[in-house]
Amino acid sequence: MKDLSKLTPQEARLLIRENKLIVPTSGISKGHIQGNLAILPKDVAFDFLIFAQRNPKPCPILDVTDIGDPEPKLMAKGGDLRYDIPKYRIYKKGELVEEVTDIEKYWTDDMVGFVIGCSFSFESAMLNAGIPVRHIEDEHNVPMYLTNIETVPAGMFHGKMVVSMRPVPYDQVVRAVTVTSRFPSVHGAPVHVGDPALIGIKDIDKPDFGEKSEIKEGEIPVFWACGVTPQSIAMTSKPEIMITHSPGYMLICDPVDEDFSVL
Amino acid sequence: MKDLSKLTPQEARLLIRENKLIVPTSGISKGHIQGNLAILPKDVAFDFLIFAQRNPKPCPILDVTDIGDPEPKLMAKGGDLRYDIPKYRIYKKGELVEEVTDIEKYWTDDMVGFVIGCSFSFESAMLNAGIPVRHIEDEHNVPMYLTNIETVPAGMFHGKMVVSMRPVPYDQVVRAVTVTSRFPSVHGAPVHVGDPALIGIKDIDKPDFGEKSEIKEGEIPVFWACGVTPQSIAMTSKPEIMITHSPGYMLICDPVDEDFSVL
Repeated sequence: MKDLSKLTPQEARLLIRENKLIVPTSGISKGHIQGNLAILPKDVAFDFLIFAQRNPKPCPILDVTDIGDPEPKLMAKGGDLRYDIPKYRIYKKGELVEEVTDIEKYWTDDMVGFVIGCSFSFESAMLNAGIPVRHIEDEHNVPMYLTNIETVPAGMFHGKMVVSMRPVPYDQVVRAVTVTSRFPSVHGAPVHVGDPALIGIKDIDKPDFGEKSEIKEGEIPVFWACGVTPQSIAMTSKPEIMITHSPGYMLICDPVDEDFSVL
Repeated sequence: MKDLSKLTPQEARLLIRENKLIVPTSGISKGHIQGNLAILPKDVAFDFLIFAQRNPKPCPILDVTDIGDPEPKLMAKGGDLRYDIPKYRIYKKGELVEEVTDIEKYWTDDMVGFVIGCSFSFESAMLNAGIPVRHIEDEHNVPMYLTNIETVPAGMFHGKMVVSMRPVPYDQVVRAVTVTSRFPSVHGAPVHVGDPALIGIKDIDKPDFGEKSEIKEGEIPVFWACGVTPQSIAMTSKPEIMITHSPGYMLICDPVDEDFSVL
């Protein structure tokens, strides 16, 4: 099989659509951004969009589909949100009821799809700047934590922010802030640097999602708003139905990382 | 009367609410941002919000009110969009039908208010960086032009982008780009530098809105996405009713300019 990192986003999405590529998407079509997915019926999609607008750090919306139209035109021209993601999760009233490889039977004419920015993009910026990313080095999932940071509510949606953590050497913390600040539409600058207790994290070695990252001597934990927040919020808020990607199985998008830098 | 530039945003909004201050808002509560206003009924507000999400440079949304709730909580805590703007315009099917000082009789339970970023904030950044702003020097309205730049459509909303123009000395063009890039939520970096014809502007001395700015020897015209775009688009798209501020009579908001810099 062709080197997956060299597939164009269109080639990758087509293989996924044909169920020939049911794998975590990290590393596929290298350099292109990947997106988190949330699909909701129109009656709650407006509230969700307002929620995202009020909470741009955890919920940076990259694309919203027209009502009933499965093509995310800005992020994946010619794409189809019903088939182009390797694995989906179906939530009903906040409960996970099924994992599927397409959502044909769940898609209805009033569905609205949201593509939400993902930390892969700013991690590339960190690596390019010579800042180590522990969970990439150690090949495990990033550690994520539920915090005491309130989001701004909208309609039925409300709850606390989820953050991801990366340990950064003291002398590279400022650089980590500046390089990630360039990417406000993929979470941007950190939300907190240092003491986890100040944002309500009791045990840094016990993440609520993902896996623990080792914090070495001379490193400080740095926290970014996390794209799991909208899923967590929507699950807490219990809409009748919500469809998401399965963690790690993302939408491979057309733009490249640098398309999202503001400077 | 107290120096208007020193009023707190709350004091200014209260005077406006009581019809004691019916003047253009430029210079009032100096340092605080001001916002463009658009109010639409819920049935088209969702499309408008998607339109704004797809066109963040001309339509940077700073706040969206809950359906039927006139308080823009993020931008003006305790504020009321029905009274807190000195002068409003009522459009029906794209036609201006009335200018009023409050919108009590037009407000309905399904109204959604949008506060949209305004160029005042990035002009402060330019002035702070020592870059002259011609229309402020010459005390006239900024020149604005309808371009051939297509916006990304959403539902009933579609059309061309409106830009504003500021002449910048050649040796300060790069600096003008970098300082305004820091403010993506108030239009951010320019959309075009140089030849007006390339973006469909036939005569730079005949702006479609506002007044002509003199371009002096050694200066180049620099174009930014303009907050008049959403009004222009909505007027072209002819929704049943749309309420906006009157040009120059803006919402005075709580945050200060620097609250919107990403770096």
